[in-house]
Amino acid sequence: MARPTPPTARVSLKGAKALRKGNPWLYRTELLEPPQTEERGAVVSVVDPQGNPVGQAFYAQRSPLALRLLTRKSPAEEKVDEAFLRHRLELSLARRAPLRQRDGVRLVHGEADLLPGLFVDRYGAGLSLQTLSEGMDVRKEWVARTLAELTGASHVVCRDDASGRDFEGLTREVKLLHGQGEARFSYHEGENLFEVDLLGDMKTGAFLDQVDNHVRAGELARGEGLDLFSYHGGFALALSRTCDSVLAVEQDAKASERARANAARNGRTNVTVENANAFDVLRRFSESGRRFDTVVVDPPGLAKRREGLATALRAYHELNLRALKCLRPEGLLVTCSCSGKLTREAFEEMVLSAASDAKRPVQILERRGAGLDHPVLGGLPETEYLKAFFVRVLL
Amino acid sequence: MARPTPPTARVSLKGAKALRKGNPWLYRTELLEPPQTEERGAVVSVVDPQGNPVGQAFYAQRSPLALRLLTRKSPAEEKVDEAFLRHRLELSLARRAPLRQRDGVRLVHGEADLLPGLFVDRYGAGLSLQTLSEGMDVRKEWVARTLAELTGASHVVCRDDASGRDFEGLTREVKLLHGQGEARFSYHEGENLFEVDLLGDMKTGAFLDQVDNHVRAGELARGEGLDLFSYHGGFALALSRTCDSVLAVEQDAKASERARANAARNGRTNVTVENANAFDVLRRFSESGRRFDTVVVDPPGLAKRREGLATALRAYHELNLRALKCLRPEGLLVTCSCSGKLTREAFEEMVLSAASDAKRPVQILERRGAGLDHPVLGGLPETEYLKAFFVRVLL
Repeated sequence: MARPTPPTARVSLKGAKALRKGNPWLYRTELLEPPQTEERGAVVSVVDPQGNPVGQAFYAQRSPLALRLLTRKSPAEEKVDEAFLRHRLELSLARRAPLRQRDGVRLVHGEADLLPGLFVDRYGAGLSLQTLSEGMDVRKEWVARTLAELTGASHVVCRDDASGRDFEGLTREVKLLHGQGEARFSYHEGENLFEVDLLGDMKTGAFLDQVDNHVRAGELARGEGLDLFSYHGGFALALSRTCDSVLAVEQDAKASERARANAARNGRTNVTVENANAFDVLRRFSESGRRFDTVVVDPPGLAKRREGLATALRAYHELNLRALKCLRPEGLLVTCSCSGKLTREAFEEMVLSAASDAKRPVQILERRGAGLDHPVLGGLPETEYLKAFFVRVLL
Repeated sequence: MARPTPPTARVSLKGAKALRKGNPWLYRTELLEPPQTEERGAVVSVVDPQGNPVGQAFYAQRSPLALRLLTRKSPAEEKVDEAFLRHRLELSLARRAPLRQRDGVRLVHGEADLLPGLFVDRYGAGLSLQTLSEGMDVRKEWVARTLAELTGASHVVCRDDASGRDFEGLTREVKLLHGQGEARFSYHEGENLFEVDLLGDMKTGAFLDQVDNHVRAGELARGEGLDLFSYHGGFALALSRTCDSVLAVEQDAKASERARANAARNGRTNVTVENANAFDVLRRFSESGRRFDTVVVDPPGLAKRREGLATALRAYHELNLRALKCLRPEGLLVTCSCSGKLTREAFEEMVLSAASDAKRPVQILERRGAGLDHPVLGGLPETEYLKAFFVRVLL
C-alpha cells in the first residue's frame, strides 16, 4: 500500500537554512507556498525553493509561527504518525531517568524534547498538560491517553489557559483529559511536601523548573532567611531546613495561604509568611536596618510586561540592590529571573552593577538555570528563560 | 602608641574609579606616584589624585600589577596586619563549611576570597600552597604556619612553580613550608580515592575545580564511556560508577600510569587507560565507526598557548565536532574548557556550531563552572576560567 503523501510547504532559502541549522521554527514570512490543506495542525513535508526536502513539520493555520519542524527526514525516509510521536514521548520520559526519585518533574519540555509546543508536568499520579502549538492542540486527547498509558497517571489535566495560546490563535481552556473528579496531588521538593490542585490553582501547578534551585538554596542557606516573591513557599521551606528562621513574603493572598499551609504540613514552625509587596518590605527593612544571612529574590517575569526591558532592568536592579544591602557580611543572595527577554549576560551585568552600587565585594558561586528536566534546545535560545545566580556578599 | 603609617601610593582617577567599583587590580600604568618603600609586597595606603583614601593594597616592586587591593578602608579605619590576614584566612575556611565532608578542596581562591595571589588546596592532611603576588610570596612562611594551625594540616607544600610567577617577577620554587619527609596524600571525589604527591606530581595536585563536575558526570553518564584528556582519571573513575565500561585517553605516560593505579586502587575493573593523543583517537573512531553513550572532552587550556584564540577555537571545534559525531543517539557530551581567554559565550557558540555542523539536535542540560570552592569575584572576570557544559545529543 502506498503511503498517503503529506501536503507540501515550500519555504524561503533563508528559512530552509535556519531549519537545517537547527532552529525548528519557521515564521509565516518565510513561507513561499503554504501547504494545500485546511486541516488544523497538519503534518506537512517541507521543501526549499528548489524543491529539495528539508524535513517534516507541524503546520499551523493561524499562528505567525507557521511551521515547527519535527524531523529533518523527508516523508520518504520517515513517517510522522502516532507511532513516531509515541516514540518521541517515550524518549522524553526516558531522559528523566536520572530524576526518577522525584515525584514532581517536567516530563516533556516542548521544542527541547523535539515535541514542539507540548509541555507536561508530573505531580505524583497527576499530569498537567499544556499545548502551545496547533499541532499539539489538536492531538492533546491522544497525547493524554498515551501519556496515561506510558506513565500510569490517574489524571491528565489540560491547562491550556496560558497567555501564550493567544499568540498561537488558540482558545484558552482548562479541562480534565483523563481521570475523574478532583485533581489534587502532592509532590516533594527534597524533604518538603507540597500540594497542588491541577484544576484549581492559578497556574499549571508549581514552578518545577526551580526545584533543584530550591534544594540547592537549602543546602547553602543559614541564619536568618528572607524569601521574596515566595508563591507557595518553594524556596522558603527549603531554606527553613538550614536557616534558624525564614520570613516568606508573598503579595497574593491565596498563594500566601498556600505557603502557610505548606509550611504547617511540613512542620516548618520557623517559617513566617507575610502577605505583602516585596518592594515595600525591602524599603521597610532598609529604614529599620533589619538584616538577614540569606535572601532569595525570585520575582515573576518583570520583563514580560508592557513597560519593556529597560524598565524591568531598573526594577531588577532596585530589588537586587536592596536585597544586597540587607545581607549581613558573608551572607548569601539567591537571585532569579524568569524573563526570557533578559539574557543571562544582561542579568549578570545587572547583579554585578547592584553589588558595585551597594559597595560590597561579592563572589559568584553558581550560575544556575532551570533543572535537567527543562533543557535548552541548541539553536533555539527562546527555550531558555530562567536564571538563578548564587552570590555571596563578602564584607 | 601611634600606629606606623603605611607608605602611600597615588593612583590615577581612572584607577581609583575601577578600584572603588570592585576591581582589586591596578596596573603600574595607573600609578601616579609609587609608594616610597623598597619593601617587597608592602602594604600601602592608596589615594586618588586629590589625596582621598581609596583603600589599602599589596604593592609589588616588579609586577606590572602594581597594586592588589586588600580593603576599601583607609589606614585610619582598619589596620592591615597579621590579625587582619588571619581573619581573612578564617573567613575563607568558613566559606568551605558546605563542603566540610570533602577531603580534597580549595581552601583559599586568591582574589575571590579577598586574599590576592594566594591559592591553597587541601588534600587530606596536606596543603598545597601557591602564591602569585609579591605580597603573598613574602608572607608564605607565615601563611603556612597559620594555615597549619587553623586546619591541623601535617604538611604545607609550597608549589610556586607555575608559569604565572614569571609575570609577577617571582622566582619558581617547590619546597616544604611545614612538616617533614614526603608529602603523599589521598583524597576522595565522591566514592573514588585518588593519590597525590604534593612535592612530586607535575602540578599542584589534582584539578579540584572539576571535582563537582566529575561527580555530576558520574550521575548522568551511562553505557559505554570515553574520557578524553583523562589526566589521573578524575572523570573516568566517576563515569565508571554508572557506565558499563570507560575508555580513558591520556597522552602523558606518567599521568596514564597514575590513572591506571587510581582505577586499580578503586577496583574499577571496567576502566581501560590508553596512553594516546585524543585527536588521533577521535580520528580513529571516526574511521572505524566506534560509538559511545557518554563522551568527556576536558583538554588542557588550548587558548593559553601562543597560537592564539582563533587557532584554539578551531581545535576546540574539531574536538567537539568529532566527539559529537561519535555519540549514539541520546548520548551525553561533557565538554570543558579551562582557557580563561575563551569566554563562556564564545565557548557556547563553539559547542552549538559543532552540533550544527554534526547535524544533530542537542539539549543544553547544564552550564557548569568550577565548584563552590573556586568562586568568581564580581568585578574581576579574570577570576573565571572553567566551563563544563553538559549536552545531550537527541538523534
